[in-house]
This record gives sequence, C-alpha cells and structure tokens, in this order.
Amino acid sequence: MSTVATPPVISSFESRMNQRAEEIDSLLCIGLDPVLESLPSPVERTPEGAYQFCRDIVAATSQYALAYKPNLGFFAGLGREGLDVLYRLRADIPAGIPVILDCKVNDMGPTAEGYARGWFGALDVDAITVAPYMGEDACAPYMNWEGKCVLILAKTSNPGSGQLQDQYLATGEPLYLHVAGLASEWDSRYPAHIGLVVGATYPETLRSIREKAPDQWILLPGIGAQGGSLEDSLASGLNRQGSGLLLSASRSVLYASDGSDYAEASAKAAASLVDQIRALRR
Amino acid sequence: MSTVATPPVISSFESRMNQRAEEIDSLLCIGLDPVLESLPSPVERTPEGAYQFCRDIVAATSQYALAYKPNLGFFAGLGREGLDVLYRLRADIPAGIPVILDCKVNDMGPTAEGYARGWFGALDVDAITVAPYMGEDACAPYMNWEGKCVLILAKTSNPGSGQLQDQYLATGEPLYLHVAGLASEWDSRYPAHIGLVVGATYPETLRSIREKAPDQWILLPGIGAQGGSLEDSLASGLNRQGSGLLLSASRSVLYASDGSDYAEASAKAAASLVDQIRALRR
Repeated sequence: MSTVATPPVISSFESRMNQRAEEIDSLLCIGLDPVLESLPSPVERTPEGAYQFCRDIVAATSQYALAYKPNLGFFAGLGREGLDVLYRLRADIPAGIPVILDCKVNDMGPTAEGYARGWFGALDVDAITVAPYMGEDACAPYMNWEGKCVLILAKTSNPGSGQLQDQYLATGEPLYLHVAGLASEWDSRYPAHIGLVVGATYPETLRSIREKAPDQWILLPGIGAQGGSLEDSLASGLNRQGSGLLLSASRSVLYASDGSDYAEASAKAAASLVDQIRALRR
Repeated sequence: MSTVATPPVISSFESRMNQRAEEIDSLLCIGLDPVLESLPSPVERTPEGAYQFCRDIVAATSQYALAYKPNLGFFAGLGREGLDVLYRLRADIPAGIPVILDCKVNDMGPTAEGYARGWFGALDVDAITVAPYMGEDACAPYMNWEGKCVLILAKTSNPGSGQLQDQYLATGEPLYLHVAGLASEWDSRYPAHIGLVVGATYPETLRSIREKAPDQWILLPGIGAQGGSLEDSLASGLNRQGSGLLLSASRSVLYASDGSDYAEASAKAAASLVDQIRALRR
C-alpha cells in the first residue's frame, strides 16, 4: 500500500471563531490602541511603556477575548519603533485567540501583495480590515489567502461616515449596501472568509446589512466609548445561529483605570461586557 | 521700539512644489517600491538589501525627482524591519525634495491622529494618500496639518476601480467626481493642501476631475509599467499654469536594469521620462 503525503489542513477562520466563541461564551473583541498620553500614570510614556501596557492588558483579559484587534494607526503613532512593538505584542497573544489587524488597507496588485505578505504572512494575523473604494481586484490579494479573513468596511462608526457610504446609487441602493452585497458575493468565490465592518452606532443600518450578508462575520467597532448600544447591536446583528458578531471595545476596556490596578480594572471591564453580552443573547 | 517674536513661517506644500518643479523643470514623481524578488541580481534579497537599493536609486535620480513616493505596502511586505527601513530611507532623501507616503490611509478620530503623528510627525513626510470612504471627519486629522498635503483617492489606476468609483449617484454624478468636488471644497477650508489621486490609465476621467479641481495638485500613478500615456495625461491634467501634476513612475525607473548598473540605468530611465515630459509641455 503506497502512502501519500497529506497536505497540511488549513482551518477556516469561521471554524476557529465559532469554536472559540462557544468555548469561552463571548463575542467580545478587545481593541489594542496604545496612546502615550492615555497610558495609566505608573506606565512610562514611551513605545516600550506602550508595549508593556498592552502586554499586561492581554494577559489580564485573554479569558474574555474572542479576538484582539490592534489598530495599526496607534502603532504608527508611536514612531519608528511602532511596528516592532506591534510584532512583539502579536507574539504575546496566546495561540488560539484570533488577531485582527485593523489597518483599513486599500491598494492594488503588487502593493496589496506586499501588505498581504506583511500582515497575513510575517505578522501572522488572522484577519485584516480593508476599505473597498478600489474594488474587487484590489481586494483579491488578501481574499486569496486560505484560512484568513478580510473584513470589508461597509458602514463605519464615525459621524461623517454617511458622506460617501449613505449616497444612494442610481440602482436605488445606498453605497454601504452595495458594498455589503459585493462582499457577500466575494465570500462565495474566494478562499478567505469575507466579513464586514459596521459601526455599532448605526443599528438600523446593521439590520439591513445582516439581511444582505446572513452568514458572514461582522466586526462592530464603537461599543462603549463611542456610544454604540450592545442591546441594539445584538438585536440587529446576530446571525441565524445567534453568533457572527465581533463586538469591539477599545478605550472602555484599555483605560478602565489610571492607577497601578489598570490590568485588573481592564479585566473587570471586559468581564462586565461579556456578562452583558451573555445576558442579552439568552 | 519693542521687538515681537515672529512665529516660524511654515511654507505651504504648493509653494515648495512649485519652486522645485520650476527649479528642476520636472513633474516626475519616483515611486520607491522595494520587492525582494525584483531586486537586481547583485543586491542581497533582504530588508537591508532593499534599503541599500532604494538609497542608491535616490542618490542616482534626485536631480530628476520632483518628489519621491515610497509606498507603505512594500515596506510592510519586508516584515518586522520594514518600518525601520522606511525611516532610514526617508532620512536619505535630500532636503528640499518633497516626500509622499503612499499609504491610502482611512481611519477616524484618535486613530487618524495616530497616523498623522506617525507619518507627518515622526516620519516627517510632506504628503500622504488618503482613501475617502469614511468621509470628511475621518480625513480632518490629516487636513489640519499646516504645510502638509493630503492626496485624496478619486479614481485609481487599477482595472476594477470602477466597481465603486464609477457608480452613478442619485445626483447624476459618478462617485469619483463627487469625491473630487468634496476634496476641492475641503481644500478651501483646511490648512493643508488637499490634492487628488487619479490613475494615469483613465485620461478622460482625469479631464473631468481637473475641471472640478482646477488648482489642486493631482498625483497620477500608472505612468510606465501600468501603461498610462504621458501625452494623454499631460493633455488632460495640467492646470492653467501648465503644472500641478505629479506623474508617478515606479517599476520602469526602479527596475531599469537587473545588473550592477542598476543605479545608472534608473537615472537614464528617469532622465528619459523628464525629457519626454519637457517636450510635451512645450
């Protein structure tokens, strides 16, 4: 009997997410957004201090985190060492917890391949956020990565998001719904999972996007400091299995205390959010 | 007579660009896009090799470059050291030559402030490219930097750019023109110069955007390897002063030779493009 080498099995992003969401009973995504001026008093206001702070937050909150979401902008803001801090922090996130790099990237061809090689390859994150303005061929280099996830911006949480996203097209559809439809269609054709980003500050919009994308993971930034309601978000955004939402909180968890108890305080804030999510899902 | 301290004068992006464009009689922008696999044979295929290659290209071509445009995606693609390579390279670009970071950034509030602090502050580039999908408030943190330039993506050079950008709005206008109008209006209200990005592969689109934004700098990627025509671009895109275009070439200049003469070959390729531009402007 001849033996045939079996290719390594790449687990899908959805299966990893579903497994962890069930295991820890949480839909909480914790944003890692280090700002030197916001670091608690005992922490040094340097890139090294920002690293140690984020590492402590991860250690304290990992049992509550369905995923972590470092946002590239805050690491860029740390200056020359910012990317090195991000790489070190990524290595500290326990295996089995998906990592989403919020980079809202949007570029084409060889440039997009550069980003994919950097973020999916070298940094080894599970998902990235992608702006859709350049269209399908500009998103393809990310969408071709089996086992990864591409989260396409549909409707963002900022006050002025409607300036483009709410524009009605000649087809009678607002732009954000056109984008949600495209992402749903891409999901059926590409190896990666294609999810969406929808601001928690717009629950009615979330409902219409969920109808257009019934089975996809949706990242909802804006829980907590930005004022998005958990109750409205869950009512409008859960999929048919009562899951599929990444409820993302950053400042309200990270900066829960300005004192030396910052790590415990962040764990308490995360635990409280998870309790609220559990109660609302039942 | 009392003496009053004079605040430091911040020169405008437009004045720096106009001065250099006149001094060296060039509208050529040289893209710095290091790809390990494309580096000439004598160069080591490592981040350090990529750095030395780009440094040599800058030294060989600086007399032809109205501006340099490193693209963040290629530095991200170098892995953990990528940002450090970018910082070193930026320091090697002679003072007086504007640097455009092509990062197609798009984020909001404190995140956008992080990017602004990183790219305009620490890295000290003169201009960045910004995707408009999130609207005005998400672009404001960049547009508030006096003396800098924000180049808003209107119509990109990739084949699928029309999927969103060519959508007709209920107002009867395609999305890219709506964006060009917004950018033109923002330019009148913010301290930074607000320019546009228009792919050189769409000359008719460029003409309609120039009408909407008569006085703004327009970055035109896609000259050379991507097939954009210099003649069409100049005919459609020059402003009333016969200037205002950044004609951007990357691969055709960078990778002009695979041998040890790569620096001289890139200088020849840049000189030839500058000659063509001069001939077409007269």
